[in-house]
Amino acid sequence: MDEALFEVALKQKTGEVQTIISDILSGYLKEKEEPYVQTILDAMEYSFLAGGKRLRPLLMRETYRLFDQNLEGKETLGTFMTALEMIHTYSLVHDDLPAMDNDEYRRGKETTWKVYGDGMAVLAGDALMNSAFEIAFREIDDLMEEGRTQAEIGRAAKCGVILSRKAGIDGMLGGQVADVEAEKKHLPMDLQKILFIHEKKTAALIETAMGIGAELAGASKEEYEKVVEIARKVGIAFQIQDDVLDVIGDSAELGKHVGSDAESGKETFVTLRGLEISQREVKRLSDEAIELLGDLPGDHAFLEELIRHLIYRRK
Amino acid sequence: MDEALFEVALKQKTGEVQTIISDILSGYLKEKEEPYVQTILDAMEYSFLAGGKRLRPLLMRETYRLFDQNLEGKETLGTFMTALEMIHTYSLVHDDLPAMDNDEYRRGKETTWKVYGDGMAVLAGDALMNSAFEIAFREIDDLMEEGRTQAEIGRAAKCGVILSRKAGIDGMLGGQVADVEAEKKHLPMDLQKILFIHEKKTAALIETAMGIGAELAGASKEEYEKVVEIARKVGIAFQIQDDVLDVIGDSAELGKHVGSDAESGKETFVTLRGLEISQREVKRLSDEAIELLGDLPGDHAFLEELIRHLIYRRK
Repeated sequence: MDEALFEVALKQKTGEVQTIISDILSGYLKEKEEPYVQTILDAMEYSFLAGGKRLRPLLMRETYRLFDQNLEGKETLGTFMTALEMIHTYSLVHDDLPAMDNDEYRRGKETTWKVYGDGMAVLAGDALMNSAFEIAFREIDDLMEEGRTQAEIGRAAKCGVILSRKAGIDGMLGGQVADVEAEKKHLPMDLQKILFIHEKKTAALIETAMGIGAELAGASKEEYEKVVEIARKVGIAFQIQDDVLDVIGDSAELGKHVGSDAESGKETFVTLRGLEISQREVKRLSDEAIELLGDLPGDHAFLEELIRHLIYRRK
Repeated sequence: MDEALFEVALKQKTGEVQTIISDILSGYLKEKEEPYVQTILDAMEYSFLAGGKRLRPLLMRETYRLFDQNLEGKETLGTFMTALEMIHTYSLVHDDLPAMDNDEYRRGKETTWKVYGDGMAVLAGDALMNSAFEIAFREIDDLMEEGRTQAEIGRAAKCGVILSRKAGIDGMLGGQVADVEAEKKHLPMDLQKILFIHEKKTAALIETAMGIGAELAGASKEEYEKVVEIARKVGIAFQIQDDVLDVIGDSAELGKHVGSDAESGKETFVTLRGLEISQREVKRLSDEAIELLGDLPGDHAFLEELIRHLIYRRK
């Protein structure tokens, strides 16, 4: 896919995703309006709108499109796109807390706890996670009330399982724990643990995004497995590239100091294996992901380019 | 119901509840065993086992029993009993954090953050909430896989909605926000806000307990509404009694200093309305709850005594 064409498509698709999830969030917050809880609604909205590229809901929607080109009126898809972004947002809000990474800024904006206090940020994160699952349960209940087919209800229930599993100890939270513990206790880092953290902390939500997209669009079990395998490779490559960029990146583009990992003595894939092997690993994972993508139905030109774009980014 | 007989029944039923939820928790944690995440499994277990009277799952099970005497093999009930206790536990873990109430002890044991650090306690709370919803989604998915009736699946989905709504901004989290904000910002407290906090922070999970019990046992819509109304009255009476005990309680029995609310300048139902009116309000709510209970089917002798016991406790 041509680079300029891709940029146009990316911008348009991201805009569509942004509209879908913002509308669902606004409707949700509006429904909860109540003077005594206004602050947490504000804190949730602040955290959510500070969000970046909406990569996860975009990946979910583009994966869905491989198996079903008709995206009109796919409300369950919109619900899970929003739920996943809520989960991603809550994890950032809690991650930034003084009790965790103690970050005061994220993407140039003050973090939620800096603006609302750390107690309210704990609650805002809790509320974002709770809301993600609340809208998912309500989706299943709505489908039943509307008398939808067993297949549709079953898929939504499966997506609830995927989301809660991969956001939990089997996924993102498991990676967080290993990461926080290694850092706080200064435990030795080895390649196995780094790969565990990359796989759980980052790849798990990419797997959720693409897995739910496939599941909702009615992919077969084999196709679903293939999609999750692609997502896993993309997620790990993305994180190794992060370590690579810390060494060779451009400070201005990255928006952070280059070489910070080495200076702080943080062990990464690159400090353990060296730059060359790391870059080769990124290429291997990316090539394998794109090759697997070729086995899937539909038009995958955009998704293929998006994967390259994500992995071979310079910031 | 005779007091001695009630004590025996309470002990036995609490023991049964304890066994059901501990077994489900153990099975769940066992399934997640993985060296890198062991600490959070330990922190979750520590928090959960530090738990007290298992009041919420007990109320759920006893409410279920009103509508269906056969408790054998009711796995969905066990799942939601455990999920609710996980939600209750996560709220205590986050409540105790330095960023929130900064409590070092709960029921004579060190709080989770004192033992595991505040970063790990944030994650342990997150993991408990996530796990609650994970087991609920898996329950719905299992029922579908087993080809259970539409009615059974529909009830489980409704219970997912009840749990996530009442644990969220419409319920417990909403109450938490109003409470934290009033305290941190020293906002003026009035009766309306106190009742809002009591209703959301405490009554909402009692409503969840009894409401899910009724829903799973197949109660009619009218019966469900009545059950939730009973639970609301019990929850609010329970909290006003808490304020009353701060004035007239026995320090030794309460395990805390009596009169602490007045000394700290904390406004409560009692400081605003006086002891006599507060006690009358507790009696009114309790009488109304018990009268409403009389309209429900089944044998409510135990549940009636449990409500009296909860409200007119001395500690």
